[in-house]
Amino acid sequence: MLADKTYSPSRACSLAAVPGWDLETDVVVVGFGAAGACAAIEACQAGVEVVVLEVAGVGGGSASLSGGEVYVGGNGGTDVQREHGFEDATEDFRKYLMLAGGPAADAERVTIYADNGVAHFNWLREQGVPFKGTYLPGKWIEPPTDDTLLWSGNEKSWPYLEQARPAPRGHTVQFVGWGGGQVLMETLCARAEELGAQVRYDSRALALVVDERQRVVGVVTREAGTPRFVRARRGVVLCAGGFISNTAMVQRFAPAALECELQVSAGNDDGAGIRMGMSVGAATLNMQEFFATLPFFPPASLVKGIFINERGQRFVNEDCYHGRVAHHVLRQPNGRAWLLVDNEIFGRPVIQEDIQVAAVGESWEEVEQELGLPAGALVHTVEEFNRLAAQGHDPYFHKTAEWLRPLTEPPFAALSYCKGDFQGHAFTLGGLATRPGGEVLDADAQPIAGLYAAGRTACGLPRWGEGYSSGLSLGDSTFFGRLAGRSAAAGD
Amino acid sequence: MLADKTYSPSRACSLAAVPGWDLETDVVVVGFGAAGACAAIEACQAGVEVVVLEVAGVGGGSASLSGGEVYVGGNGGTDVQREHGFEDATEDFRKYLMLAGGPAADAERVTIYADNGVAHFNWLREQGVPFKGTYLPGKWIEPPTDDTLLWSGNEKSWPYLEQARPAPRGHTVQFVGWGGGQVLMETLCARAEELGAQVRYDSRALALVVDERQRVVGVVTREAGTPRFVRARRGVVLCAGGFISNTAMVQRFAPAALECELQVSAGNDDGAGIRMGMSVGAATLNMQEFFATLPFFPPASLVKGIFINERGQRFVNEDCYHGRVAHHVLRQPNGRAWLLVDNEIFGRPVIQEDIQVAAVGESWEEVEQELGLPAGALVHTVEEFNRLAAQGHDPYFHKTAEWLRPLTEPPFAALSYCKGDFQGHAFTLGGLATRPGGEVLDADAQPIAGLYAAGRTACGLPRWGEGYSSGLSLGDSTFFGRLAGRSAAAGD
Repeated sequence: MLADKTYSPSRACSLAAVPGWDLETDVVVVGFGAAGACAAIEACQAGVEVVVLEVAGVGGGSASLSGGEVYVGGNGGTDVQREHGFEDATEDFRKYLMLAGGPAADAERVTIYADNGVAHFNWLREQGVPFKGTYLPGKWIEPPTDDTLLWSGNEKSWPYLEQARPAPRGHTVQFVGWGGGQVLMETLCARAEELGAQVRYDSRALALVVDERQRVVGVVTREAGTPRFVRARRGVVLCAGGFISNTAMVQRFAPAALECELQVSAGNDDGAGIRMGMSVGAATLNMQEFFATLPFFPPASLVKGIFINERGQRFVNEDCYHGRVAHHVLRQPNGRAWLLVDNEIFGRPVIQEDIQVAAVGESWEEVEQELGLPAGALVHTVEEFNRLAAQGHDPYFHKTAEWLRPLTEPPFAALSYCKGDFQGHAFTLGGLATRPGGEVLDADAQPIAGLYAAGRTACGLPRWGEGYSSGLSLGDSTFFGRLAGRSAAAGD
Repeated sequence: MLADKTYSPSRACSLAAVPGWDLETDVVVVGFGAAGACAAIEACQAGVEVVVLEVAGVGGGSASLSGGEVYVGGNGGTDVQREHGFEDATEDFRKYLMLAGGPAADAERVTIYADNGVAHFNWLREQGVPFKGTYLPGKWIEPPTDDTLLWSGNEKSWPYLEQARPAPRGHTVQFVGWGGGQVLMETLCARAEELGAQVRYDSRALALVVDERQRVVGVVTREAGTPRFVRARRGVVLCAGGFISNTAMVQRFAPAALECELQVSAGNDDGAGIRMGMSVGAATLNMQEFFATLPFFPPASLVKGIFINERGQRFVNEDCYHGRVAHHVLRQPNGRAWLLVDNEIFGRPVIQEDIQVAAVGESWEEVEQELGLPAGALVHTVEEFNRLAAQGHDPYFHKTAEWLRPLTEPPFAALSYCKGDFQGHAFTLGGLATRPGGEVLDADAQPIAGLYAAGRTACGLPRWGEGYSSGLSLGDSTFFGRLAGRSAAAGD
């Protein structure tokens, strides 16, 4: 037997070098998170043998640490949306998702998701995932209650609201406060095992095995310190998460994400799935993209503040999704930006209470001086904002009337969102190029035989930091995980 | 013999599938442009057999259509820099190149280039490349004369000038007007053939050949309609250019580049080299990045204008490198931006004479209204600019005093640089991950045996559109092409 270090996710292992199969099955799923569990469920239901290789000692992956929110809608709306008076046409959902995908949005993937969002939500409930069915109004980063439906993206903000009729689409698993992801994953993992998936925990996939025609035919995995060779008669599905836990990969592929010190991950998003795909000629897409947030609210009153940069310029409509605000903040010149507030709306951000107050003054002139900005720059911006906000308008950035209020009640303050002063949260959005069905694609967009991927190992629906909405990653992972599981089961 | 369509740059061909070698050599170089010619020269000089596969009927690649400018400096300066009074410390050159590389700058590559820039310039002359040795002051996109030295980047503009002492580093091959690239490439190609490189023209590399250990051992190429199998005993060097000619690849990997309709290419930048690397597990870096320019000057007087977006905001110091300005223009909201000029500085841009004049007025209020901007937005920006420019300052964008002049002489005009109204020029900057020596790297940054790359097939020194400077691509391709040729010759 070859030594463990012989294998690397970034190097395919030739079939000729396999000493013998330790285990044979139809479909091997690498990773038992949201995508992997759903792939396993569907593959089992297609009647084939499924082995899941999970590096951790328990299932759930990073999804189990999430809030358990799933972004779905369309077809007139889920029953929850309709019950609370929200119609959601498929076309509006589709347009929203196209905008959310940014310059490299995948129309085919978006269309299939928009068409099937309602059915997918129903499928999750059929698996036993609980949703209370209630609606929580307001602007939240995560719901503090066990309610289901909330506004979780850019729906009601410019430019989205001009192109797609808004509807709340965040559907959150029933759980009081943070923890819905745990419930979601316990349910889906239990369901996969109940259907017959053989889950091997503490099993670290080391490399893909390819035959002489470069077809993927199995996986080398390490169990109890020993390499084991697992044959996949029909296909291998890579559902091993993104790469935010792998600092060397982040440095090479998404260096801007290093500004965010908090990784949204259960710790195993080491890019092994992406690297295994690359090892057999897969193309990667949008590797530079990442979800980021600087949770500058709640309290929601802070959304009525305005962000400025070191030129005293505003740069974003502050009422859009917090992750979109974050990306605009991160790219300001010299990494310097501040949230300007007045006494009425001021409050400590709940998630980062110790945010630095960079300047306080009885007048905006004082704040401007304290920040050391060009004379008149900040003052002009605030005056212009105040003048127009008093009329309920923001012709520059299109912040909606609900969040427009002149900042006129002293004292005034600037909260620092300069580099080093905030704690950003991030996870990666780039990954393997795939068809919606999960088939992993090479540099010419042709499928690589025997290989499938879903979840953050793939470049999925959420692929542009500026367009992220809460629930997109879980929605994508569970839905496209299902399709990948079906495709692999049908593979031969 | 297998049919031609069996082969694809995105699929490696197994050694087992090779019916027999049609040709055997030590080093195979794919592509006879700037990188390939230099790789061939060095490999020949290392005493090994070299075969070059060139898809076109002549050598030179896209470099032969360039202006023939090479970005070099450091070590106190080239003799041309020194002769004209410009000192250029290696550390300043290094810092400049690091800034130019952007968030994913490669310190190792930058350091080796900064250390060896002067020696490389001398080497080019030793190969017979003519440089007149004269200095051309002023701000040019390309020199209209046969002079050598010019300012060709962001050296004298913010933020570069604050971090690295400026020096002109564009060294242009002697040729009156546009055409130095042709001279450069005729010289380098002739030199490679004279040293013994066997160049096979009209030879289209179809796929890499890998042995059972996934080592690259040869290339399948198509000649006269027939696949030919070329063994590379020591290594294959991919110097096949970027991918701007391959619209499907641009759409997938660098969709923002589609805004620029003019491809800077001789037509064969189809990404075949990059795809061949990916087929054997190579990582790609910065695939979304591209050089872009909207040549809004000469006349240089236009640099004294100011760009604004639909919010009436300025967004860049207009005196920085035109490609940096272009990237800022391209990313403005709704793709809308205008260059504001007054009567004194107005002139038709030489390279795009038919630029649309979107608004003209006797006052800035008129121009603002004609553009349909929020009332007062443009007027305030111009007034503030004028007030400070009259004092020789631009505290907002740090445009240097040389280009600051109040825009006060009516009539006033706005030249449209809105999406659809300009003709952008682009080529891609993303490519294979390599060591400075040319070794192609996998997803874990480990070298792939037998494979090397340089020029735009690799992600090189120029890897960030905002940081590009004229001459960086030729400098990078010729220098790192040499290193890759040496590495391959030493391979075994």
